[in-house]
Amino acid sequence: MRARVFVTLKPSVFDPQGTMVAEALHTLGYAAVKDVRQGKYFELEIDARTPDEARRIAAEAADKLLANPVIESYRIEVEASSAGAAA
Amino acid sequence: MRARVFVTLKPSVFDPQGTMVAEALHTLGYAAVKDVRQGKYFELEIDARTPDEARRIAAEAADKLLANPVIESYRIEVEASSAGAAA
Repeated sequence: MRARVFVTLKPSVFDPQGTMVAEALHTLGYAAVKDVRQGKYFELEIDARTPDEARRIAAEAADKLLANPVIESYRIEVEASSAGAAA
Repeated sequence: MRARVFVTLKPSVFDPQGTMVAEALHTLGYAAVKDVRQGKYFELEIDARTPDEARRIAAEAADKLLANPVIESYRIEVEASSAGAAA
């Protein structure tokens, strides 16, 4: 089962990488891009019986390793590869 | 309008960062996590009239700046902030 984990800096945390990307896009002529936030993205292939179990494992991995809970927040999406998922 | 750009290494490209994350998770006891791929995630706030226009701008930004098309592929999701989007 595949879980996607999106890790982003909390809105209150300054994101210099995103700011630089926005400035580079302005230089390239994309003035329509007002703001950029950069984050990390993980695809986990998890051996789990239910989507709920995969989500629980992904959340623990995010808490312990993938995200820094002081400055980052995360969001998880579970994609049931074959079986029709209930959750 | 908010566009999300997910940049991942192409499946044929070796992902040492993802491999290290998977090994670290195994060390922490998460043997159920079989494989990890790491990527980048961008949230662009775009001043566009339609979701299609926002998607076009995000795709150009990804082609020119956010992704390296030789080794990376990207996926775009556009989230219409207020108006009911047609696409």
